[in-house]
Amino acid sequence: MRPGLIVAAVLIISASSASAFAQTWHPPAESARCPSKWGAADQRGAANHMKPETVLRAARLIRTGQVFELGRRLEASMPLQATRTFELHTKRTTMNPESNRRGSNEEIVLAEIGQVGTQFDGFAHQTIGDSLYNCVKVDEAATRNGFTKLGIENIGALMTRGVLIDVAALKGVETLPDTYEITVADLQQALARQQLTLQPGDAVIVHTGWGRLWGRENSRYMKTNPGLGAAAAEWIARQDPMLIGSDNAPINVTPSPDPQLSNPVHQIALVVNGVFLLENLRLDELAAQRAYEFALIVEPLKLVGGTGSTVAPIAVR
Amino acid sequence: MRPGLIVAAVLIISASSASAFAQTWHPPAESARCPSKWGAADQRGAANHMKPETVLRAARLIRTGQVFELGRRLEASMPLQATRTFELHTKRTTMNPESNRRGSNEEIVLAEIGQVGTQFDGFAHQTIGDSLYNCVKVDEAATRNGFTKLGIENIGALMTRGVLIDVAALKGVETLPDTYEITVADLQQALARQQLTLQPGDAVIVHTGWGRLWGRENSRYMKTNPGLGAAAAEWIARQDPMLIGSDNAPINVTPSPDPQLSNPVHQIALVVNGVFLLENLRLDELAAQRAYEFALIVEPLKLVGGTGSTVAPIAVR
Amino acid sequence: MRPGLIVAAVLIISASSASAFAQTWHPPAESARCPSKWGAADQRGAANHMKPETVLRAARLIRTGQVFELGRRLEASMPLQATRTFELHTKRTTMNPESNRRGSNEEIVLAEIGQVGTQFDGFAHQTIGDSLYNCVKVDEAATRNGFTKLGIENIGALMTRGVLIDVAALKGVETLPDTYEITVADLQQALARQQLTLQPGDAVIVHTGWGRLWGRENSRYMKTNPGLGAAAAEWIARQDPMLIGSDNAPINVTPSPDPQLSNPVHQIALVVNGVFLLENLRLDELAAQRAYEFALIVEPLKLVGGTGSTVAPIAVR
Amino acid sequence: MRPGLIVAAVLIISASSASAFAQTWHPPAESARCPSKWGAADQRGAANHMKPETVLRAARLIRTGQVFELGRRLEASMPLQATRTFELHTKRTTMNPESNRRGSNEEIVLAEIGQVGTQFDGFAHQTIGDSLYNCVKVDEAATRNGFTKLGIENIGALMTRGVLIDVAALKGVETLPDTYEITVADLQQALARQQLTLQPGDAVIVHTGWGRLWGRENSRYMKTNPGLGAAAAEWIARQDPMLIGSDNAPINVTPSPDPQLSNPVHQIALVVNGVFLLENLRLDELAAQRAYEFALIVEPLKLVGGTGSTVAPIAVR
Repeated sequence: MRPGLIVAAVLIISASSASAFAQTWHPPAESARCPSKWGAADQRGAANHMKPETVLRAARLIRTGQVFELGRRLEASMPLQATRTFELHTKRTTMNPESNRRGSNEEIVLAEIGQVGTQFDGFAHQTIGDSLYNCVKVDEAATRNGFTKLGIENIGALMTRGVLIDVAALKGVETLPDTYEITVADLQQALARQQLTLQPGDAVIVHTGWGRLWGRENSRYMKTNPGLGAAAAEWIARQDPMLIGSDNAPINVTPSPDPQLSNPVHQIALVVNGVFLLENLRLDELAAQRAYEFALIVEPLKLVGGTGSTVAPIAVR
Repeated sequence: MRPGLIVAAVLIISASSASAFAQTWHPPAESARCPSKWGAADQRGAANHMKPETVLRAARLIRTGQVFELGRRLEASMPLQATRTFELHTKRTTMNPESNRRGSNEEIVLAEIGQVGTQFDGFAHQTIGDSLYNCVKVDEAATRNGFTKLGIENIGALMTRGVLIDVAALKGVETLPDTYEITVADLQQALARQQLTLQPGDAVIVHTGWGRLWGRENSRYMKTNPGLGAAAAEWIARQDPMLIGSDNAPINVTPSPDPQLSNPVHQIALVVNGVFLLENLRLDELAAQRAYEFALIVEPLKLVGGTGSTVAPIAVR
Repeated sequence: MRPGLIVAAVLIISASSASAFAQTWHPPAESARCPSKWGAADQRGAANHMKPETVLRAARLIRTGQVFELGRRLEASMPLQATRTFELHTKRTTMNPESNRRGSNEEIVLAEIGQVGTQFDGFAHQTIGDSLYNCVKVDEAATRNGFTKLGIENIGALMTRGVLIDVAALKGVETLPDTYEITVADLQQALARQQLTLQPGDAVIVHTGWGRLWGRENSRYMKTNPGLGAAAAEWIARQDPMLIGSDNAPINVTPSPDPQLSNPVHQIALVVNGVFLLENLRLDELAAQRAYEFALIVEPLKLVGGTGSTVAPIAVR
Repeated sequence: MRPGLIVAAVLIISASSASAFAQTWHPPAESARCPSKWGAADQRGAANHMKPETVLRAARLIRTGQVFELGRRLEASMPLQATRTFELHTKRTTMNPESNRRGSNEEIVLAEIGQVGTQFDGFAHQTIGDSLYNCVKVDEAATRNGFTKLGIENIGALMTRGVLIDVAALKGVETLPDTYEITVADLQQALARQQLTLQPGDAVIVHTGWGRLWGRENSRYMKTNPGLGAAAAEWIARQDPMLIGSDNAPINVTPSPDPQLSNPVHQIALVVNGVFLLENLRLDELAAQRAYEFALIVEPLKLVGGTGSTVAPIAVR
């Protein structure tokens, strides 16, 4: 990168705290968002994009056979939101009595398994008031053992064109600043720089560089993060994607520039638009190799009634 | 199917209890199996087949964009081995205090998450005596919180050519008999009938029809099952596959024809040959549509030190 | 017992299904039960009986030093309500590196630990509609991690005079019939037979004999049970006890004679009167030795925000 | 306390780091400790002291009816050893369909429930090498779901004379210094000051003042602590007690003065002498009121195969 570009990047970044960029957003009335565009009874939202032509479009991007692992290792020491835990306890060898001396090991795991590690958010996860995607009410659907509607088991595997929008590269930095709000202009400029356009049904993956802190500075990773502002999330939603992913925990910039808002991106994607979120992605290799277009394949666990799923997605090109 | 074929099928099946077909097997000495063909320090076994050409070979099989979900729903009522459990407890809405009234739901899950539902067995799962794959000793690797060697986090996603060997169709039945031992001849005849041959690195998927009982007759599903005999498993292992899958819980026929043996197929695949197992697959749609060749994509969770992973694999063609 | 008495007992028992004995009960309006007699802000109900003179009254009953264990063993195979579980997983030895070779074992336990085994019910456990003891509303007090009011940690250990009312002995049977409703007359006659009267602050323990099934016929133990009718529970509540215990799971007779009622005894004791329940007691030895009066000592775990506690109470005389 | 005494106390305490006081200890050979004095098949160790006369001796100490709660509140924020957890998840109201609108709440708890909070250590908890109390071998007794020998369910409730040895008061301080090793002389002098002697079967409770940090300075509470040295523990063991308790986590001083030793007090009490430990006691009120002699009543949960039990013991006088 030439010196002139660095100056420009610094200018753009330092402008990010200006009020012009700040998020302002109000949750829409139910009448403005329900029924969803996928129909009043729909429980799958943007997963309805999963059609043979979507899969073929993704498969055609597989030209070298290169696979990028986008999932994080699941371990007790990983960054976790305060309300969550991950424990794995070995159940040591049971030796079967037969002559072939077959021993068997397993482990008991205790975790908010739908909401830890690299994870895929479904529609039972988030509300506006008491109302989920497609205006399903929490009290109608919640039971002690999961949700009777909108559970993650309804989604199935997703295989679609993935596009990495490398905002960190646009700004000429390895990692965006700690509380940087990504704007619509950032996304548009990054796409233009990468000579790519979004298409309906895409997996839109935003690289902030924040994932470099995972496993190194875990408390900093969870405390703040660069991420999408509300306006940027709404702009992506208008492109009609299947999902939005990023290398941070909440997709949203943290803290929200407007302190009256709590992670509006979650509501914009999951509740208002029926678009999934893919959190805590490992994007360093994709970014390093400028792998901007690929087949994104993610296989959420079929947790009946679950709000999401830990996953180990891949990008293939 | 014509009447004559039914008679033939019945004859073949009833012959299956003859001693000629019965399993006999002895676990090989350590000197005969270690170091593994992948090297003395290897922890990934047949996952070493995952190379760009393997992925491309699989991708070329994607011609229609049709996706088959091979994973079962994860719920408390699913069939479970006696030592295992699956519980999902809803953590009801936490309402964030900000103006956008964002509520958040999650769930705590308690399960042998590596060993329930449709699941992928790794190398820390099974032993011959105190010895795992590549002669790693249990006491060297086991800790209270997983295994320091051979953990499932070492494997990564697998994308390879999948071949369904439909033994039930070969026999002209929907479901093989309750304790039917699949033989080498069965596999060879089924492949010939399907006009397919196996290639190194394949995912070899055996259809028994037993999966029809899942969710319908759970205790019968777990009590006995048709499945591979030791000879058939050794024959598959000699074809150098990446993994062996089936629509039953133990891959092995249950009970073992030789009552002195406890699930030798697990030892043959995991301990002796470093080949993975993929259990409790849902294969009915693949079989019904005669989808015998496809891209098999499975994304094991990166449970650090884990013996396996529940998964939601897909077949794509 | 003489033959004539047996005949009488049989007559009384067979009359128990007559409508004259059947429960009828309506939950009182909030205005009729709140504030509780212990005050509008009270969270401890009948635990307010725990005063030095109560303890001394109990201690004076300790004359021989004989201890009766009233608690059941906690194990996976014990009778459990369908919504509950108990799992104990060994965490095998961690060997400390120092020269004294100190190994340490522990175990992870997963259970509704407040509501399994012999257990003590607190006031967050039961409601009439959305209203708990002293008209605390569930939504005011419930969080994801327990109740901010009425939690079991407020109660403390109880040591009081215990009285065993042996209704089975009154009827001349080892075990009352499967769905036998204990009446006010039963209680009064049993007390008269035992030449005892109740005093305020007592632990009133009702022997049905049903505990003989524990560990022997677990599914029968949980399916139905002899126990208190609503009228009998209200009569005990009027005697102003500290707690009501029995050798069955719900204290209430199961099923309720009035099928429109679900375990009214739980509401009468916990919600209306602020009296604790002590379930699944082991009473066989007390009954066999006619130990009708004793010091009852129970130490609920201080589970902050908990609805109850598994306990291992003792009777001492 | 007069100024002169304070000076003396300071002198004594500052001398505590001198080598003369330091622990030295070697685990005895199996031949020197097995069979235990309670017999070769014994699993209950000092619980064999629980006889009617022991109970009566304790009951006679109940003169005022005053009850001291010695148990800590069980909550996620309490001090925990690094390998342990405590989680309580509310299972929100299930409303029963009958007319009395009975709602029921419960909670799932995940914890090393035998080894958290105020807790009672049993004999499966600690080893010398691979050997437990009475030379039971870990591999003989350990299963995936607890120990087949020495489980805590064998112990039962304990009611015995309790003696508080207030070492902090002897030293004229509220809290002993962070790594203070309590010596035999300290114990003897404190008993002399309190004009009490120990008797076989006593619960020996040592007040260090360290419990003042519980809930206030949790990480400091767990990092180091004043506590018994090996010599002091051996001296107590020679008095033939039922149990040893203290207001710290490990009973032993932390770190061990001899860095080659890891908590020898645990081995001395549990493995060598069959004496129980009672940890994390709340002793402030006993000490403040100089309640030095009392009935100690502790009711361990009957966790089958368990290594210990969280408890909520009381002292009554």
